[in-house]
Amino acid sequence: MSDYLPTAPYRGTRDFLPAEMSVRQQVFGRLYEVAESRGFLRYDGPVLESAEIYEAKSGREIADLQLYTLTDRGGRRLALRPEMTPSVARIIAGNASTLQFPVRWYCHVNCHRYERPQRGRVREHWQINADIFGSDSVNADIEILGVVHDMMAAVGATRDMYVLRANDRVLLEAILTRIVGIPEERVRDVSGLIDRWEKAPRDQVRADAAELGLDDAQFDRLEAALKAGEDVLPELPADVLERSNLAAIMRSDAKDLVTYDPLIVRAFEYYTSTVFEVFDRDPANNRSLFGGGRYDDLTGLFSGQRIPGVGFGMGDVTLFDFLGTHGLLPEPRPEADVAVIPVSDDLLAPARGVATDLRKAGWRATTPIEVRKLGKEIARADKAGARAIVIIGPAEWAEGNVTVRDMASGDQRTVPAESAARAVSDLADHP
Amino acid sequence: MSDYLPTAPYRGTRDFLPAEMSVRQQVFGRLYEVAESRGFLRYDGPVLESAEIYEAKSGREIADLQLYTLTDRGGRRLALRPEMTPSVARIIAGNASTLQFPVRWYCHVNCHRYERPQRGRVREHWQINADIFGSDSVNADIEILGVVHDMMAAVGATRDMYVLRANDRVLLEAILTRIVGIPEERVRDVSGLIDRWEKAPRDQVRADAAELGLDDAQFDRLEAALKAGEDVLPELPADVLERSNLAAIMRSDAKDLVTYDPLIVRAFEYYTSTVFEVFDRDPANNRSLFGGGRYDDLTGLFSGQRIPGVGFGMGDVTLFDFLGTHGLLPEPRPEADVAVIPVSDDLLAPARGVATDLRKAGWRATTPIEVRKLGKEIARADKAGARAIVIIGPAEWAEGNVTVRDMASGDQRTVPAESAARAVSDLADHP
Repeated sequence: MSDYLPTAPYRGTRDFLPAEMSVRQQVFGRLYEVAESRGFLRYDGPVLESAEIYEAKSGREIADLQLYTLTDRGGRRLALRPEMTPSVARIIAGNASTLQFPVRWYCHVNCHRYERPQRGRVREHWQINADIFGSDSVNADIEILGVVHDMMAAVGATRDMYVLRANDRVLLEAILTRIVGIPEERVRDVSGLIDRWEKAPRDQVRADAAELGLDDAQFDRLEAALKAGEDVLPELPADVLERSNLAAIMRSDAKDLVTYDPLIVRAFEYYTSTVFEVFDRDPANNRSLFGGGRYDDLTGLFSGQRIPGVGFGMGDVTLFDFLGTHGLLPEPRPEADVAVIPVSDDLLAPARGVATDLRKAGWRATTPIEVRKLGKEIARADKAGARAIVIIGPAEWAEGNVTVRDMASGDQRTVPAESAARAVSDLADHP
Repeated sequence: MSDYLPTAPYRGTRDFLPAEMSVRQQVFGRLYEVAESRGFLRYDGPVLESAEIYEAKSGREIADLQLYTLTDRGGRRLALRPEMTPSVARIIAGNASTLQFPVRWYCHVNCHRYERPQRGRVREHWQINADIFGSDSVNADIEILGVVHDMMAAVGATRDMYVLRANDRVLLEAILTRIVGIPEERVRDVSGLIDRWEKAPRDQVRADAAELGLDDAQFDRLEAALKAGEDVLPELPADVLERSNLAAIMRSDAKDLVTYDPLIVRAFEYYTSTVFEVFDRDPANNRSLFGGGRYDDLTGLFSGQRIPGVGFGMGDVTLFDFLGTHGLLPEPRPEADVAVIPVSDDLLAPARGVATDLRKAGWRATTPIEVRKLGKEIARADKAGARAIVIIGPAEWAEGNVTVRDMASGDQRTVPAESAARAVSDLADHP
């Protein structure tokens, strides 16, 4: 056979070999622990969803350009989920009668988007989502922001490494309509302009603003408001500040959770008030890592019951870039704790028995698949990170004994086979 | 709005709500532990694969009828992986130069097949795969069979609940060609007939056999051989028994791992010798739960290097049916260990502080999203399975104290806020 199939994964998707997978498992394991430590419950849902749930609410970029769609043999139009929020809104709406709101839920799922592969962008990524459904209270926003900071701390990040920038569409709309003087129906388009504010040249932004009907005075007022940061808030009417959860957070003892930034918009159309993004502060990686917000109408696609939600999605690609930039990636876990090594093929059966005893005592213990020279197996055990080896040799085994060796010190002793697990534990306790 | 989008997941796929997800997490967690206790390393790969890797080897049923395919915007023909074996063969072949064979790998992935939904069949299922690559040794087969039995034991199954039936295509081919007298080129078709042997009426089987060119004497010899079980083996030439890993297992101290059954064929075309399936022994659920085997040529699709493999895939649907049938499903985990309950809204901030202390001490601790009457919150904590509550009341808090209550006994005591975590630990230690 001369032409083989390619071994590379489909463009923009990734294989995770064991060393990398071990790093991922450790990082995600810490994130799961944070979620569970706050009473968030894990859920899951399908990769395939009805295509229409994205076309309704996810924003034009995703629905038109990034969605992987297919039609099943029954003619049903499906999509590979590009994000989890519409799915969880569907699940919440469908099970609302049996849930005791508010609920705290999290998941860890793979999502697909047809992206042009580049740094920080892939076609299949894994994301953690954490959401609270069924509460308008600012406490829900505070809880979600707390999860974000706890997760960052759990992977080793300190507050000097990142900043959580937050905005509120309630505030943004009031700035646009009441301070800048933009009509309601233009709020969405001008919000899109603000989303591009820092990415496009100023002349371009000004030209785009003019095209949206902003005169020079309006543009200047908009620019001034966006630059003012928190100082713009006192200019807003009391009823607006009253309706804004973000303004409430900034008045409370939880104000350190956020840095107000009127430039934070987020592309998803379903957000209704709080929106936030976490940015890397490292100049070499100064970009948005992930974000979230409050989406009070999303379950409305699926039922007439109003169930407000607030949450975020944290994708693996930007997170692992951040961890790499800041030297926070953990080491892969050693492959096994103990290698049980028979010196000849006929001693493999007793080696299996000793390994079984070790496993019962809680050790990860291997036996060789192919029995090779003792030196080779010891080198392999060392490379695999084993803390101890148990050697099954013919003379010792004839008397029911095995040799337990500490890999760090090289110390070894011969013990009855049934004491091997105890001997390994003694080594580990007194290294 | 009068017409809402449906809340049901796409037909044949499933939503997992938290209670069910907790059960799944516990069961799969035990399976991961078994794999890791034997030095198997976890890996992962993409949902989307090039469609051609299934068309080459997975068998006609999957490629023609069950594959979800799509074409990306670049014209590339893709499939949602229907199983993991071709993917892992691709990954192994692509990374062979950096791997130290033999390797033990496992994964837990979602796979898609366009099935007619019915009991035990869904369109998206989750499966654990465990494989050893790079060894022809019978020790690899024994290790894989050991993983199967350890996994069954880890979820609470005893040997009377299931049977592991094994066959070897080396033995089957020898029975067909040397005992029944079937030409080599008919072995595959007759194997397919054997796969249907117990499912179709005998007359139908006989008619199908005739169509494949078997005369009456051949059919009778085939039927006798299939009924003979182990007794057929002595009739086979020594060189065949020598080449069969299954025959070697049956001669060894590992023979209890398998029950020889010449009717086990398995539909996948890539198997080359050992094949096995685990069957439920319960008469109400007497069916194949999962299976695997040895596939010595699969990486040959991707490279010229021969890398033999042996392994199995365990799908969640049949596994959970089995666990349900035998009463082995664990209870969902309680939502939290401790509920910290402020009696009024202004005490929520100190409640958050106490909850943070509890989390640092390793407890899963919640604070309410919406502060309600104490009785309601206590009822909710009880329902959530909390073992303790910490009540933040105004009089106690004014003196820096909180009340810790054991939910089982109702005993409570007032302690300084900074001792709350200690007090909860004391309750848990002395229930």
